[in-house]
Amino acid sequence: MNDQPFDLDPALIDRFAAIVGDKYALRDQPDIAPYITERRGLWHGRTSLVLRPGSVEEVSRIMRLATETGTPVVPQSGNTGLVGAQVPDKSGRDIVLSLSRLNRIREIDVLSNTVTAEAGVILQTLQEAADAAGRLFPLSLAAQGSCQIGGNLSSNAGGTGVLAYGNARELCLGVEVVLPTGEVFDDLRKLKKDNTGYDLKNLFVGAEGTLGVITAAVLKLFPKPKGREVAFAGLSSAQAALSLFTLAMDRAGAALTAFELIARRPYDFTLKHGQGITRPLADDWPWYVLMQVSSGRSEEDGRALIEEILSAGLEQGIVGDAVVAASLAQGDAFWNFRETLPECQKPEGASIKHDISVPIAAIPDFIEKAASAVASVSPGARVVCFGHMGDGNLHYNISRPEGGDDEAFLGLYRPMNNAVHEVVRSFHGSISAEHGIGQLKRDELIATAPPIAIDLMRRVKAAFDPAGIMNPGKVI
Amino acid sequence: MNDQPFDLDPALIDRFAAIVGDKYALRDQPDIAPYITERRGLWHGRTSLVLRPGSVEEVSRIMRLATETGTPVVPQSGNTGLVGAQVPDKSGRDIVLSLSRLNRIREIDVLSNTVTAEAGVILQTLQEAADAAGRLFPLSLAAQGSCQIGGNLSSNAGGTGVLAYGNARELCLGVEVVLPTGEVFDDLRKLKKDNTGYDLKNLFVGAEGTLGVITAAVLKLFPKPKGREVAFAGLSSAQAALSLFTLAMDRAGAALTAFELIARRPYDFTLKHGQGITRPLADDWPWYVLMQVSSGRSEEDGRALIEEILSAGLEQGIVGDAVVAASLAQGDAFWNFRETLPECQKPEGASIKHDISVPIAAIPDFIEKAASAVASVSPGARVVCFGHMGDGNLHYNISRPEGGDDEAFLGLYRPMNNAVHEVVRSFHGSISAEHGIGQLKRDELIATAPPIAIDLMRRVKAAFDPAGIMNPGKVI
Repeated sequence: MNDQPFDLDPALIDRFAAIVGDKYALRDQPDIAPYITERRGLWHGRTSLVLRPGSVEEVSRIMRLATETGTPVVPQSGNTGLVGAQVPDKSGRDIVLSLSRLNRIREIDVLSNTVTAEAGVILQTLQEAADAAGRLFPLSLAAQGSCQIGGNLSSNAGGTGVLAYGNARELCLGVEVVLPTGEVFDDLRKLKKDNTGYDLKNLFVGAEGTLGVITAAVLKLFPKPKGREVAFAGLSSAQAALSLFTLAMDRAGAALTAFELIARRPYDFTLKHGQGITRPLADDWPWYVLMQVSSGRSEEDGRALIEEILSAGLEQGIVGDAVVAASLAQGDAFWNFRETLPECQKPEGASIKHDISVPIAAIPDFIEKAASAVASVSPGARVVCFGHMGDGNLHYNISRPEGGDDEAFLGLYRPMNNAVHEVVRSFHGSISAEHGIGQLKRDELIATAPPIAIDLMRRVKAAFDPAGIMNPGKVI
Repeated sequence: MNDQPFDLDPALIDRFAAIVGDKYALRDQPDIAPYITERRGLWHGRTSLVLRPGSVEEVSRIMRLATETGTPVVPQSGNTGLVGAQVPDKSGRDIVLSLSRLNRIREIDVLSNTVTAEAGVILQTLQEAADAAGRLFPLSLAAQGSCQIGGNLSSNAGGTGVLAYGNARELCLGVEVVLPTGEVFDDLRKLKKDNTGYDLKNLFVGAEGTLGVITAAVLKLFPKPKGREVAFAGLSSAQAALSLFTLAMDRAGAALTAFELIARRPYDFTLKHGQGITRPLADDWPWYVLMQVSSGRSEEDGRALIEEILSAGLEQGIVGDAVVAASLAQGDAFWNFRETLPECQKPEGASIKHDISVPIAAIPDFIEKAASAVASVSPGARVVCFGHMGDGNLHYNISRPEGGDDEAFLGLYRPMNNAVHEVVRSFHGSISAEHGIGQLKRDELIATAPPIAIDLMRRVKAAFDPAGIMNPGKVI
């Protein structure tokens, strides 16, 4: 990567600016600043121009000009991604294409159970619009107040609703994409079944803006559950949590809408550092599970189901102790506990994070083997393990040893990653379960994925973006 | 297409045969016959060689030699496809690659809820193996006794289980593919979440063997329902059926495991021509619905749920009459009625069939407008409409006018297709919801899909199969 400043030709900037109008062409660095750094400050880039188009037609004209002039374009929506996919590189050659003004919900079709939304719609806004229409849009994640649909789709977002409803890809029925050449690929279908040729939609979803610019999508809606019951359980081992998951799936099936695993350490960190947190269970346990079931029939039905599962779990000696939330407020408090986990790791010092998945059956073994791997890199480092057990997805984070030095620990970033990811690979797992590749894991992906997979991905990239102007340096 | 006989060079045949051994290299036309005609006799092809490899390694060597010599290869598994994708063309240039000897179930992982199966495993064999392991493999379709997993994936098969469990694509977590060059792309992952680059898997699924040869896959398993309740309802309109579907989804959510719509005419044909068929409802209705709910808890729970839905439907005036099957046998009889519909159309003379989907909300309007379109092509032609309403997928078939001439009616094949598909397109629907494109709909797809979609598909094809040897003349 070229670290020399590179200034876009002012005449070219003018041509781009003319497409969106001066008001929406940001050229001053203070205006540009929020678009070139992501929120945690991990990725900083450089650009001379941020464009904020107000229509698909403007996006199309921008891309046409970008192709004509060989200008690299970085699409960005809510700028909440965790792997640097939405931030320009340091070369100064990229322009940023912000989708945030494309923020219309074009249609809600309650009978077909679909919503058609533009890339700049904020996730929470979409959730609320669905709710107002008597439907559920189940994608739910920590950044939902600011992340936007375009980024959710481009990163194939996960979150806490995946177990029952699927990730962003599975929630998406159709897309509208502006290709690098400016051509508009309109595939905004509401169809559950459509076998007319290759699945192009799923190439754009999860491509992190490297194949085209998603400008709108048709997404699935679901009936709103009438009863939502949340329980917190204490267990003696990760193996017991796996048994409880199997039991709960068996009884509840798709009515099991969350199954989150929490180890003792993040639980304790949250009790210690969390604001307004109440202890979910009286006694301490090595492992905890937050479980949710949803009933389409009634609160009573949901309650009977969750109690049936927990009773069976207690009877079979799988569950040590459990509390079913007695009120919506207590249920929200359980969820708040879960959602507060990541931030309560911060006061414990520097940490090295992993977003991994393995086959569900392998979770207990993974946890054991990964702990040894961590200890071999940094004796005393503290494993902070929690995540979406029902999806095989753990946020396997490592805090520095108690009283240790932050910088010295962060110096172990790469060997720690390598050690943990080596264990992941030994279980045929994924080194990026839900956050994507972006800049953060690109080199590692290329170095460790089967060469034929990388080769096929490069062929797709070359076929869709032969000039290499779509978000260069990301993913592949 | 060249209709002159073309004979493969005998020396080349010998080289291919040497890979699998003479026993599994079929060169005599009587042995070859079952592989070049599909069951309904609609598609006939020509070939000098059918290869039946016994391992992935042999498939790989076959493809390597095919690439080296520019020999087109037609992959085939159960040979039950309905659009001619699995049959060689008439040129005699293609060789047929039968996957049926790759019929091992490599692993069932009950804790991860996955099964790893080879392409030649018969669907029903897989269903039975899952059942024996205490799990459900929900893909279910008429040809399940002979169709095979490779074909199910390559055609992204649908069937009656899609509503709750998804189509073949949604049931597939990972694939093993032999590329045209013979390279093996091993992506046999058991992961629910994996965001490491482009979604290659979904390109191969549904590609009808035109991008590579699927040799094995990881598929999802589900808990076995403990209660399965089936009901047959009579309704006054397709609009009422849509209202009942919305009501049932609202109450049952993912526990609604089937919602099949049947018009009066196919119902009557089945009563008239079906063997061992009993009348499901005492009175006649313009429309019928076969509905199934599944409970993870108990038979009683499932029964309470289906009765709750039907009671509400009767109360709201949506449902005219309904019977819940009183026994497993009666439930099976209802299903048998549904599955007998297609064959009971045959005695009524020639028919022209359509496998279409539209947004669910559009089904009543589609039915009305399509009927006018049919009448304008052939006054007196009889619409035979049934299908998977919950998926927006109708088998919209047309029988010739009563007492009419078969051949004269079949002469209307193209104008009838065009008229019905024009209505489909006006609702942004699909002209192939679950059967695929193959040879049957290739020209129509190319003529009517947005040119940019065809262009993107051609780029994918060129990127994966630059020599054009994978199942040429199919899909694109």
